[in-house]
This record gives sequence, structure tokens and C-alpha cells, in this order.
Amino acid sequence: MVDSVDTHVYPVVWQTDHVLLVDQNKLPEEYTVVSISRCDDMMTAIRSRIVAGESAIGIAAAYGVYLGASEMRMEDRQAFLERLEAVAEQLRSLRPDKTSLQRAMERMMQVAIQTPGSVESIRERLLQTAQAMQTEDLHIGHAIGDHGLAILPSTPDQLTLFTHCNHGALATAGYGTSLAVVRTAWQQGRLARVYAGETRPRFQGSRLTPGNGVQEGIPVTVVTDSAAARCMQEGRIHAVLAGADRIAANGDVINKIGTYGLALIAKAHDVPFLVAAPLSTVDFSLPGGEQAAIATAAPAEIARVGGKLLTPKAVECYNPTADVTPAELITAIVTEQGAIAPTDLHAYRDQAR
Amino acid sequence: MVDSVDTHVYPVVWQTDHVLLVDQNKLPEEYTVVSISRCDDMMTAIRSRIVAGESAIGIAAAYGVYLGASEMRMEDRQAFLERLEAVAEQLRSLRPDKTSLQRAMERMMQVAIQTPGSVESIRERLLQTAQAMQTEDLHIGHAIGDHGLAILPSTPDQLTLFTHCNHGALATAGYGTSLAVVRTAWQQGRLARVYAGETRPRFQGSRLTPGNGVQEGIPVTVVTDSAAARCMQEGRIHAVLAGADRIAANGDVINKIGTYGLALIAKAHDVPFLVAAPLSTVDFSLPGGEQAAIATAAPAEIARVGGKLLTPKAVECYNPTADVTPAELITAIVTEQGAIAPTDLHAYRDQAR
Repeated sequence: MVDSVDTHVYPVVWQTDHVLLVDQNKLPEEYTVVSISRCDDMMTAIRSRIVAGESAIGIAAAYGVYLGASEMRMEDRQAFLERLEAVAEQLRSLRPDKTSLQRAMERMMQVAIQTPGSVESIRERLLQTAQAMQTEDLHIGHAIGDHGLAILPSTPDQLTLFTHCNHGALATAGYGTSLAVVRTAWQQGRLARVYAGETRPRFQGSRLTPGNGVQEGIPVTVVTDSAAARCMQEGRIHAVLAGADRIAANGDVINKIGTYGLALIAKAHDVPFLVAAPLSTVDFSLPGGEQAAIATAAPAEIARVGGKLLTPKAVECYNPTADVTPAELITAIVTEQGAIAPTDLHAYRDQAR
Repeated sequence: MVDSVDTHVYPVVWQTDHVLLVDQNKLPEEYTVVSISRCDDMMTAIRSRIVAGESAIGIAAAYGVYLGASEMRMEDRQAFLERLEAVAEQLRSLRPDKTSLQRAMERMMQVAIQTPGSVESIRERLLQTAQAMQTEDLHIGHAIGDHGLAILPSTPDQLTLFTHCNHGALATAGYGTSLAVVRTAWQQGRLARVYAGETRPRFQGSRLTPGNGVQEGIPVTVVTDSAAARCMQEGRIHAVLAGADRIAANGDVINKIGTYGLALIAKAHDVPFLVAAPLSTVDFSLPGGEQAAIATAAPAEIARVGGKLLTPKAVECYNPTADVTPAELITAIVTEQGAIAPTDLHAYRDQAR
């Protein structure tokens, strides 16, 4: 049960020779931890979304590369590196939409190639690198929390924030991005309540965000996505917090479907709209959001809910996974380097890996 | 099955001495017709939402008054009228939020009081009145369809319309309000496709609108409510059609939760936003939408879907049933008298009953 866990949830935990993953598919009904000691099992876990969320996938896959390296019996450096590249490529292909996964695989392979000496010394460096990625991500989460807190509206003293989707502990190494701002605001006594949009079609907002809130004692109110406008009409919301799948060089944000509409609604109510994401989410090779391809997910996510068919059988469903929020609707992009105006993003090009 | 029914669906049908109601709770899995021959059963049907939708409830309740009148054995006119008023009051109290129900009860009682002669002659006039209300509502639906068609964008030739909730045949005597415009546009060859927002929390858009579409052969695509902004961002939508629970004198529209956000999103994309409703929906005693009380429904509608609990048990849900769309976001209110600019509504004060 979610109630019984530690207030600090880490979706990926390394223990001596295996990884523990919180099974995100079973939340919130069951809080189950899956033990992964083989690279193949890590691939299955990523494929079946036991581990999901932007940076958590990258970290899990990095440990997957290390587990794969441990399983390779050869001591010939070149043969080892070739096999390792094949493993990284397989992991990479499981979620081509996840920037953190692509970056993690790139970094792990670079470390492997650049580490001199024996295969054993490469293995050691791979484990250290995966662990470093996890630590860095935790630091990033805390920095995002601090920078986000600094630009929250100064009045009222006790704020009510609206969140979309779930960019909490489980999506990251353990502190979150948009929920990092929520957690830091709570710890600093600036938060009264969170309104969590349920986030159709997968209900991450109703399934995961309250769990995060309950753990920390934060009052959470769940609403349907389409009630956001009414909540703002009633003056309930002081700022909106979203995450990002990918950020274009011009500051346009590609994120979970519904983010764009929420930003339009916030703008109409003069409610600040903040996007919290590590600087690594910015893809400087993408000039603007309209150039981004948006994946569509299974129509069944819309047609069936809780095992129940809602629509007549013959009906078509359209299920885009993301939308594009233009930079001009975004008050600030909150990164580990600070809260950045979308138009100033280009100045950080050199600091983004 | 929805596929097997006549292309014309009438939610309320009078037959000799009983009423047939389409059970809206069971759609779209089952197309079930419930036979009602006692006033008490009609009350149960309204309470349990076997019959729902603005004008359908009023018509059903009007037949309920007649059934009640038939069950009263007394022939004393004054005693009969007193009992009848008690029945009308009971029916009225089942859905105080439904203007059509309140108006129908008022009209039935007025007819009863004004009909001279015996109790039997009053009974006859009550049945005629209920039937007249049904016929009038069908005419209103067709007039709304014609007036709506006339103000749809003239290009492209084949339009794609977005609908919210379900204001179709089942909500009315059998032709619909916002779906009346859709049906007429389809019959006149102006319609390519309908995008139906699923309409959380009760999924009227995914449960009911495709059924209406399938019956007529109209292609329907179901999307989550939060995908509306993406659909407009992609240029898929040429106009949005909504219904109305209640319209204030200044043209503000109170309607199903999500309507207001959709109107803001349409405005941002310069997509016409049309509200289709009979003139009787206008409440000239209500100066503006912000004066309207908005009911909240059970939190469980958000927390549980298809029998499955989505949120941790301790979590609060906020479930407002409606929101207020300010007049300035509305291109036109399509009534049986024509498509009216919200600011011109006051000119129709005398024509509204």
C-alpha cells in the first residue's frame, strides 16, 4: 500500500548486484518492488512500463547496460565493446521517444570507450556512471525545486498549485521535476494544496500524484482535466506546473497531451504557467515545437476504461500522446540552472549536454 | 445493440397507456427499452437517470403527470388538482437543476387548472399537452439544425465539427440540439466528420455521441477532452458545438463541465464556438453566469472508473458538474428562432416563455 512506504520514494534503487524497481503499473492499488538482476529483465521492465517517466528510464537503462556488461564472459576489449553497443542499442530502441534514455545510452557507451585498461575496469566505471547519473538527477530535482520556489507568486502566502500528469519522484531519480517544485514549496511552508488534473487517457494525475502527496502529507484534490478552467474561473489556482518530454530551441514545450490547452486556459486567467524540466530536456537541434513528431498511442486507451468498453465497437479514436505549448504561453522554464524565460533558452545552449 | 436500432431514436415514446424509455445508463453496451405505466416508475426512471438530457426529462415528466392523473380515482375537481400539484412537485424535485423539467411541470399544472369541466376532461388535456410538448420539441430540434447549418463556416465544403457532451436525440424529443446541427449538416452534405470529446467524468461523448453518429452513418472520432486543443492546433476542427443547461440574460452559458475551457481554446484558434439550445433555456431572471450556482457531483465519478479505484483512498476529488462560458467567447447561440449573437439575446425576452 502506498500509505505504508517511506516518505522518500526512489523508483530505481541499486543494491550490491541487482536493481529494485517500483512497479508503476500497479500503483496506486499495490506498491510492489520488482528485483532485476539480468539485463533482459530490465528490457522487459522498460518495455512493459514497470519503470516509466523521463529520467527514471534513463537511470534504469544505465543499470541495464551494467548488468549486460556483467553477463558478458569475454575479456577481449574490442569484442566486449561491440557486444555492449548492441545491448545499448537494444535498450535505446525500447522507448525512442525518451530523450533521457537516448542520452543515458550515449553517455554509458562514451564512458565504456574512453575507459582505458581491462574489461573489468570498464565494468566498474559503468556501475559508477549509472550511480553518478542517479545522484546527479537527485541534485537536479532539488535545484529545480529551489528555483521553482523562487519564482512562485509571492502572494498569497499559502499557494494552491495545479499539476498536469505526474512528474514526481517516480518519474525521476526520486525528487521529481514539476513535483519537485511542489515538494520544495510544501517543505518551505508556501503550499496550501495541489489540484491534480487526472490526465487522461492514462490517469497519471489521479493514479500517481496523490500517492506522492499522501507520502509527504500534502493535501491533493483530484479533478478531471476539463475542470481546470472552472477551477481557475473560481480563482482557486495560483500557478500551473507542468513537466516536459522535450523542449525546442525556441522554448516551445512538447509534453503530455493536455498541457497546451491548460496553458491557454492559464493565460486567459493570468495564472503563471511554469514548466519544470532538467536542461537536458532541451533539444537545441529542434528549432520549434511544430517540427516535432507527436506519437499516437493505442485507441483502446480511450475506448476502454477499467476493462469496460465505452464506445460502440466501430468507432474511431484519435489518441495523440503529446501536444506543443508555444513559448509565449510559458512564464518560465524551471531548470537546475534557474528559472529561464523561454526566449532566453538559447543562452544555455553550451551548458546543455 | 446500438447498431440494430432505427436511425431515428426517440428517448420517450407514448403508446396507448404507457411510456417507453430508452435506458441511457446501459448505452452503448445495451440498447434497452423500459416500459413505464405508473407515475412512481417514472419518478424512479428520472431519479436513476434512465432518462436524462434537458428536454427529454421534461417530456418524460409530463407523461408522468398524466400517468399520475390516471391513477387518481377521485372525481372532485379541487381535490384532484391538489393531488396533481403534489405529484408535479415531487417530479420537479427530482432534478431541480433541469429547467425543462421545471417548465414542463409549470405548463402541465397551468393546463390542468385552466381546463374547464370534469376531471376526465382535464386528464385528456394533460395527455394532449404532453404529446404537444414532444412534437414542439421535435420541431425546435429541426429548426435549430436549419439555423445552425446556415451559420456554419462556408469553407471548406466538408466540415469537421467538434462536439462536447451529448446533446443528441436522447437528450431531447428525438432530434437533438447541438447534434441537430450535426445531423442537418450531414443530411445537407456539409459534414465530413465529428470529433467527440469524451466528456469526463460521465463519458457522455464517448458513450452516446458515436451511437448517434453510427445510426446516421456519420463518421465519429472520439478523443479525450484534453486532446481538443491539439486537434485545433493541427487544424482539424472548423467549428465547435456545445449545448446549454441554462443561459443567462447577458448570453453567458452554463453547461457541462469542460465547455468553458473548450471555448477558450476555440477562441485562441479562431474556431467558431456555437451553442445550440432552445430559447426556453434562456433564464432572463439570471443577469449573468457568475450568479448561477453550480452543483457538484459525487467524487467517486472521478476516483472510480469502470469499477476500478484510481486514486489512493484518502484523496479528495472536486467534481463540479458545469462551468460558465462568458458571452464574449460564443460566436452565436443557435435557437429555434435563429442564430443569435449573445449580446442580442435580450431582444428575445418576450418570445421566451
